[in-house]
Amino acid sequence: MVSSGFKAMLLKLGVPEDRLLVLEGKGGIVEDEFEGIRYVRFRDSAKGFRRGTVVFENGEAILGFPHIKRVVQLESGIKRVFKNKPFYVEEKVDGYNVRVVRVRDRVLALTRGGFICPFTTERILDFVNEEFFKDYPNLVLAGEMAGPESPYIVEGPPYVKEDIEFFLFDIQEKGTGRSLPVEERLNLAEEYGIRHVESFGLFDRSKIEELHELIERLSRERREGIVMKTPDMKRIAKYVTPYANINDIRIGSHIFFDLPHGYFMGRIKRLAFYLAEKHVKGEEFDEYAKALGKALLRPFVESIHEVANGGEVEEVFTVRVKNISIAHRMVTHFERLGVKIHIEDIEDLKNGYWRITFKRVYPDATREMRELWNGLAFVD
Amino acid sequence: MVSSGFKAMLLKLGVPEDRLLVLEGKGGIVEDEFEGIRYVRFRDSAKGFRRGTVVFENGEAILGFPHIKRVVQLESGIKRVFKNKPFYVEEKVDGYNVRVVRVRDRVLALTRGGFICPFTTERILDFVNEEFFKDYPNLVLAGEMAGPESPYIVEGPPYVKEDIEFFLFDIQEKGTGRSLPVEERLNLAEEYGIRHVESFGLFDRSKIEELHELIERLSRERREGIVMKTPDMKRIAKYVTPYANINDIRIGSHIFFDLPHGYFMGRIKRLAFYLAEKHVKGEEFDEYAKALGKALLRPFVESIHEVANGGEVEEVFTVRVKNISIAHRMVTHFERLGVKIHIEDIEDLKNGYWRITFKRVYPDATREMRELWNGLAFVD
Repeated sequence: MVSSGFKAMLLKLGVPEDRLLVLEGKGGIVEDEFEGIRYVRFRDSAKGFRRGTVVFENGEAILGFPHIKRVVQLESGIKRVFKNKPFYVEEKVDGYNVRVVRVRDRVLALTRGGFICPFTTERILDFVNEEFFKDYPNLVLAGEMAGPESPYIVEGPPYVKEDIEFFLFDIQEKGTGRSLPVEERLNLAEEYGIRHVESFGLFDRSKIEELHELIERLSRERREGIVMKTPDMKRIAKYVTPYANINDIRIGSHIFFDLPHGYFMGRIKRLAFYLAEKHVKGEEFDEYAKALGKALLRPFVESIHEVANGGEVEEVFTVRVKNISIAHRMVTHFERLGVKIHIEDIEDLKNGYWRITFKRVYPDATREMRELWNGLAFVD
Repeated sequence: MVSSGFKAMLLKLGVPEDRLLVLEGKGGIVEDEFEGIRYVRFRDSAKGFRRGTVVFENGEAILGFPHIKRVVQLESGIKRVFKNKPFYVEEKVDGYNVRVVRVRDRVLALTRGGFICPFTTERILDFVNEEFFKDYPNLVLAGEMAGPESPYIVEGPPYVKEDIEFFLFDIQEKGTGRSLPVEERLNLAEEYGIRHVESFGLFDRSKIEELHELIERLSRERREGIVMKTPDMKRIAKYVTPYANINDIRIGSHIFFDLPHGYFMGRIKRLAFYLAEKHVKGEEFDEYAKALGKALLRPFVESIHEVANGGEVEEVFTVRVKNISIAHRMVTHFERLGVKIHIEDIEDLKNGYWRITFKRVYPDATREMRELWNGLAFVD
């Protein structure tokens, strides 16, 4: 349900009336509240308002973060996307996407889906200098929250040894979602001391060998990949390392039945194109094959055994918060996302932070596995 | 479209009128013709008429072949399906399912989808003694056509060295689809000299060790698996070998983009349950992982290279026919199935048979692969 005040505002912002009615009818826009701040989030898109867009009571709209196109053949992908133009290459960090904004004196962290995340919002000023928003109230900091103690992602990048961090990769305008040019963003990050994803500098298609070497190095260093961006941010494309494809499969295989088939098949496809592009052969090829097979089978077989022994398919993760109430609000937040989660442990780190351990259970995956283990006969 | 005569007959046979109208409207029943024989085939099911059911002008109905339930945990599957009852174990042969019937003096071979297959129909009397139908005009011989020279399947079982063969595994009544008891079927097969899938005899749940050993042996011998059946054919379940799961993936990976994700994921799942049930560990586990990874990646990467070099995703197969016209009719038959195929070669084997070589091309898979190879940037 969306109140009449918000509806009037959305119409004023340009959402067509017929689309608004359709969206409201099927729950494509939802009115929500966070600590007294009322907002509408778009679960579907509408003219100019991408999925994940958030509109506040003061009429400020934070556009949904756009999906970045992927290439699976690096050399021809670069040719096709960038032609002869130069492009910046930045690290693709493995975490979760947040948009950080100030709305009426509050700095808020929005998830990709358009929720105000209680955890990220509590922690964001540990990483982002609030001065930035005093000087630029109209800008949105888009970045990746990444680290081993994350509520949404099982693993973090190897160089974040504990807790979580924010890595800036885009600065956009409120209302339009227009990105600042890369150099302006890099300058602002430096000026305000905001950690930025690693920038590998400016490339063009003539430097394909260096890019291949960069991918090899990132893969060895267990990093996820790269995002390539023209200086004006008009053309963007991403490419991931073979390491990340196999590692994602390994992580996903533990909850095999909870993930769509496309999760695995997409990553197998990307790995195959990497092997084809690099003409990987012989023993090196077989090493990749073995790593892929183990990633698919090991955690999967382990979780079958866990369920066979009466256990459940589950994941444990920790986060650090300043206020224990945030832990309880995260449980509520997850419940709204349809995720079954509970608090396992609360530990005082004696430095102003509490470490909260959550356990997420996968009841559907558990049930399906248990049925199959117990000899279910099924038509497929 | 279905003519009024056929509609009247289907109503008489018990298809509810409303269902008949719905089915006709969406093409769920189709009237077809084969050498002057008119018939209706069910592309969807209707009360008592399974998908693949065929009804002839004389009112004879050949029911669609039922889908056999699968278990992925052999021991508990047997307990659950058969309780303490004994069951026959027969080989699951890797080929394509046909139902062989005599209708008005013609012996016809129906595919699972309810087509009269020109190739199989021409060849079927090479394998099935027509005397059987003189004595039992009301029975349907259901079996697997399997061998290296097959129009529908890339490989055959290792013991069929050339051409193709028919392997009986069920005898059903016209009209009802009721199966004869196993012993009656075995006796009829022997009496009329019809080759039968290998029978491993009668088992019960106490013989689980022998069944595990049988699966190990079949897997080593590159055979597909087993079908377990109570003597009265009331309860049936199938189980496949790890070899077959990996081999199917290897064959499918060549045409990765033409197959649904479930094709691969289902087989990975079955392999994982095999490894879990048998507690496969250490080096043996890693060997399976490597075999799986290679099966997924090798033919896939090879087909990427073929397309990168200007080729197409394609498969070549041969069949043996007595009359060249059958080859052309198979091309038409495949066209109706939406399959793009052409004759590459015709060879006189000088023994009354011609060997026809077909090439099947996969234009959609080729296009998708070429686009990705050429650097397509896409949102996933």
